[in-house]
Amino acid sequence: MPHDLDRREQFAIDLARRAGELGLKYFRDLDSLTIESKGHQDLVSQADREVELFIRAAIAADYPQDGIIGEEHASVAGSTGHAWVIDPIDGTANFVRGIPAWCVVIACARNGETIVGVIHEPSTGETFHGRLGGGAFVNGKPIKTSAATSLQEGSVGTGFSNRAEAENIAVLIKKILAEGGVFFRNASGALMLAYVASGRLLGYVEEHMNPWDCLAGMLLIEEAGGTVLKADPKTVLQRGTQIITGGKGVFSKLQELCSGVFTP
Amino acid sequence: MPHDLDRREQFAIDLARRAGELGLKYFRDLDSLTIESKGHQDLVSQADREVELFIRAAIAADYPQDGIIGEEHASVAGSTGHAWVIDPIDGTANFVRGIPAWCVVIACARNGETIVGVIHEPSTGETFHGRLGGGAFVNGKPIKTSAATSLQEGSVGTGFSNRAEAENIAVLIKKILAEGGVFFRNASGALMLAYVASGRLLGYVEEHMNPWDCLAGMLLIEEAGGTVLKADPKTVLQRGTQIITGGKGVFSKLQELCSGVFTP
Repeated sequence: MPHDLDRREQFAIDLARRAGELGLKYFRDLDSLTIESKGHQDLVSQADREVELFIRAAIAADYPQDGIIGEEHASVAGSTGHAWVIDPIDGTANFVRGIPAWCVVIACARNGETIVGVIHEPSTGETFHGRLGGGAFVNGKPIKTSAATSLQEGSVGTGFSNRAEAENIAVLIKKILAEGGVFFRNASGALMLAYVASGRLLGYVEEHMNPWDCLAGMLLIEEAGGTVLKADPKTVLQRGTQIITGGKGVFSKLQELCSGVFTP
Repeated sequence: MPHDLDRREQFAIDLARRAGELGLKYFRDLDSLTIESKGHQDLVSQADREVELFIRAAIAADYPQDGIIGEEHASVAGSTGHAWVIDPIDGTANFVRGIPAWCVVIACARNGETIVGVIHEPSTGETFHGRLGGGAFVNGKPIKTSAATSLQEGSVGTGFSNRAEAENIAVLIKKILAEGGVFFRNASGALMLAYVASGRLLGYVEEHMNPWDCLAGMLLIEEAGGTVLKADPKTVLQRGTQIITGGKGVFSKLQELCSGVFTP
């Protein structure tokens, strides 16, 4: 169904850009934004909730029988085998404090397999997008993962959450540095995955990511020629997954560094 | 000399923005950019050199008797007691790979004391600026450092270079995490200092920064109400300094964490 995939990709691109515009309105008026804590170092704002509702309404209008899984509201069961997996604002901690590194993430999965992925960064106007078998792009221009064969040739994105043992990431960073590598953490996991897809980062490692944070980026990295640790399609939509990913020349090294650090 | 300070601040703001425009021209055409290695994980591009020459020419035209210290070209000795301290592109590793987090940094020091600081991020159009005794601003709007009293309330920027023992930063990150804190590293030290000045990050720690990377940000943080580990005015222009800085409520905790990790 290439035509259907193309249509879904274009729908997701347009929707992510419109959602980003809405997010920017809140971002430019942070002083009046309502912010709540969901847990240790885990925030949610009125902007996250409103932007997600905006995205859900658009999906319900164009794909009323599809399922929806989002970060801030309850899942919608669908009847078509398709599920839209959305994060209205990835990088909320940045957003609520005024750091421009945040993005809108929209993926579409069919029977557990991601078929469309879009990561849009409103602050810079860059939209990373792709569909299964169709390659990966930023604003329509093809992208590829890094051709590096050593961690000495660039930086590795890192992330962590209160769903993993915090100390593990410090151990991993030490290992990356010992290889002559450099770590990077701009606190938006999806954006860092987009940077891996476009070869700006060598790779990305995080012990656990939620599906709305990682599915779009994982597809883009594979479509851009990179390697992704396979997630279990039966559980990834509900439970998320461990993330080890990078250009083909550094993936095995990243996997080696993570083994013994991340909980299997 | 408030009039002179105001004039120098406005000069630096205008110049940083024009230099940023020039940098953006190279950034939008990365495929044809010449890049060289200066050492392990230390790059320089034609853009760094050309933008610095542009800034130097503007200073030489308006302040011909002042000194100039920059990252990419030899120092110019002045006769007025004033030295302009410039980094044409802070975050070169980001710049050459297409990551939009980079900035132009212009500081002016008088007899070793920083009197003007400007950090301009072309990708977002934000200019952080201030002068001694005049407060700190982003695009004309006053900024202040974080009022947080615990590292659990936000993120701490971190940086390192091949001028320090790489492993130290992993030890420090472990300590930050043990306090319930979060680390951040977008690979542009000056931009992270601007984020501290504007309360977006709680603080910033790096074992050694060069003067062109840190002087502007240090002034902005103090003018925004934060605390900065004092640099030795006799040596900072030539040798740089250790950086421990943050909002008043977390500075002593950051200092405690760094002691025993950073080489005194």
